[in-house]
Amino acid sequence: MVVTLVTDFGTQDGYVGEMKGVLADRAPEAPVVDITHDVPPGDVLAGGWVLARIWSRFPPGTVHLVVVDPGVGSDRRALALCAGSRWFVGPDNGLLTRVLEGVVPSGGPPEGPVTARFLDPASIGLEPLSDTFHGRDLFAPAAAHLAAGGPPEAVGPEAPVDRLVRHPLSRPRRSGGGVKGVVEHVDRFGNLITNVPVDWLPEALRVRVGNSEVRHPGRSFADVAPGEAVLIRGSAGTLEVCLRDGRADVALGVGRGDPVEALEAGPD
Amino acid sequence: MVVTLVTDFGTQDGYVGEMKGVLADRAPEAPVVDITHDVPPGDVLAGGWVLARIWSRFPPGTVHLVVVDPGVGSDRRALALCAGSRWFVGPDNGLLTRVLEGVVPSGGPPEGPVTARFLDPASIGLEPLSDTFHGRDLFAPAAAHLAAGGPPEAVGPEAPVDRLVRHPLSRPRRSGGGVKGVVEHVDRFGNLITNVPVDWLPEALRVRVGNSEVRHPGRSFADVAPGEAVLIRGSAGTLEVCLRDGRADVALGVGRGDPVEALEAGPD
Amino acid sequence: MVVTLVTDFGTQDGYVGEMKGVLADRAPEAPVVDITHDVPPGDVLAGGWVLARIWSRFPPGTVHLVVVDPGVGSDRRALALCAGSRWFVGPDNGLLTRVLEGVVPSGGPPEGPVTARFLDPASIGLEPLSDTFHGRDLFAPAAAHLAAGGPPEAVGPEAPVDRLVRHPLSRPRRSGGGVKGVVEHVDRFGNLITNVPVDWLPEALRVRVGNSEVRHPGRSFADVAPGEAVLIRGSAGTLEVCLRDGRADVALGVGRGDPVEALEAGPD
Repeated sequence: MVVTLVTDFGTQDGYVGEMKGVLADRAPEAPVVDITHDVPPGDVLAGGWVLARIWSRFPPGTVHLVVVDPGVGSDRRALALCAGSRWFVGPDNGLLTRVLEGVVPSGGPPEGPVTARFLDPASIGLEPLSDTFHGRDLFAPAAAHLAAGGPPEAVGPEAPVDRLVRHPLSRPRRSGGGVKGVVEHVDRFGNLITNVPVDWLPEALRVRVGNSEVRHPGRSFADVAPGEAVLIRGSAGTLEVCLRDGRADVALGVGRGDPVEALEAGPD
Repeated sequence: MVVTLVTDFGTQDGYVGEMKGVLADRAPEAPVVDITHDVPPGDVLAGGWVLARIWSRFPPGTVHLVVVDPGVGSDRRALALCAGSRWFVGPDNGLLTRVLEGVVPSGGPPEGPVTARFLDPASIGLEPLSDTFHGRDLFAPAAAHLAAGGPPEAVGPEAPVDRLVRHPLSRPRRSGGGVKGVVEHVDRFGNLITNVPVDWLPEALRVRVGNSEVRHPGRSFADVAPGEAVLIRGSAGTLEVCLRDGRADVALGVGRGDPVEALEAGPD
Repeated sequence: MVVTLVTDFGTQDGYVGEMKGVLADRAPEAPVVDITHDVPPGDVLAGGWVLARIWSRFPPGTVHLVVVDPGVGSDRRALALCAGSRWFVGPDNGLLTRVLEGVVPSGGPPEGPVTARFLDPASIGLEPLSDTFHGRDLFAPAAAHLAAGGPPEAVGPEAPVDRLVRHPLSRPRRSGGGVKGVVEHVDRFGNLITNVPVDWLPEALRVRVGNSEVRHPGRSFADVAPGEAVLIRGSAGTLEVCLRDGRADVALGVGRGDPVEALEAGPD
């Protein structure tokens, strides 16, 4: 089965290369797919967001190997989670919160049973286990084992799904005729991706974000003039605030975590 | 068959990951090859240049999936082009101009028949089709379909090849004993890659570019002193102006689109 | 067999894409694995360091295609080296020094016989051979040939292993009760990776690096307060100097090549 990689390792140092070596050695038949190695260093929230965006697009049986692991070497647990018929292998530090809670930017919540195992280095890890690179020494071997069709019980003991680490997630909420939410992600183009579901949006829409109010709903960038902000029904199923031919984050002075409010566009 | 990817999505946001998920799901046997995701955002010209550089190196039957799509959601058409025994899937916005016109930095023009189809979202797209991410919802499914050997007619109706969108391309022209052209690309090393074919160059060569005249033809960087400019018969089959141990673009103050003139090196 | 890629080409220009095209054309069954294309331009030392880090993780038979080639077009030789049951294809410019000398950041020295061949463009190269892109025209065809199981003698004549180009490598040396070494690599996170083997370290440890003395050995970042430096038994088997939640290189003003001294921590 396919193994995907989401990490904060970058590619310049060979860390990802070492992980790929372990995979090539232990699961030679498994295609390896780079999702991203550009998660900002240690940014568990960002890594979990990208993972939530992509996981359900891959076929059942896929092993998602996810390593954003600032607590490596501490007593944080290591995890193989089975949810929605896919495997997720990584640290138990909240990276998998969105998978566990069925909060995804796109696709649906995981169907079917959810089970988990704590990884046991003595059973599945490389010898010697380093203190600082479990991506290579623990997570990659476990992912290779599962991708090669090995028995899940060999990676370690069962883990209680309801006691895994979860981050608090900001949820959108209805307020009057509108919706209050937050900017969850700023993408490469400077688009502000919010957590406000497009299905919750009022028909006639205006949006408050930063010190601005944006009143131009559009199907795409083409619907506004260059330099103007536009409200988009985003490809993750949530409201996005974008700028044609520019960066909305810069123009509006808004970043991740900032509040956003979607309102019925009245005469004001 | 192999599917290659040329996009301006970067890798940080998971957009490419979603496309790869669709490919893994619908064409599990097709190897997926990253060419670049670093095309400058919306730069159709740059994306088309990279595509022209690589396409003919891949074997016949390869599907080149090319998404630089600033007009997504507008009424621009979506395309599957068959040329030179390869498939090209992407927006009909000029990205494929060089393929259509046989103007390539390397390799030759497409041999054999050229045919095209407009992609029909109802036939080949994902449901629901987003307004802003046809890379995932339309182009990836069409590429997967073709890579898996599906019948071309299932992607949509035939398109008139001679009415597809083409960018005007700057062509080199002979002028006196020399050649006038432009800098078509500045690469990662700061090399100035021109559109002047090496076959057109006078034997004894000097080149005017920016406010400089370069008089050192060489086989490689090793032929000049560090910091000096050198005229190279480039690997794309055209003249390049390079600097040993430095960036020619910075040293000469020259960028994409700037004129270049190759002249017979006389006594001056 | 697997082909891995270590280059300084970046991905923006299509150079790596052209090499992948040659591989897809000539060794269609061989999985291609990106290690890095982010070696600093022309930095043979850095490329060799990354290669040394990853090569032995891949299974025997793997072909490592390594192109950091500032001397392309000069009279430097081109090489296929067989060592430790893997192939290494690239320029004979010192890139393979660590492989040849068994000096690796991780894993062990190559076992078994070491043999080499000079690549003969007339036998194994593309026609016409460019002056400036042997990655595409010579190294990729040779790597494809070997990955497809072709006979090694077809790439060119045997080469004397003891006369291949080697860089001088800085070696750690014991000094009094301590060890003197250098910083060999600064990684994406700003960690200072030294060449001092962890097995050589005194039990009670302090380290002089730049103008600082670091006295906190730890198993991981979690063992010190945010902003504090910590001495780590690194995943490459050597001492690392790191900063919790920050960059050690910036905080300590230290870079590649700077000396480091590990001492017994006395009462001082």
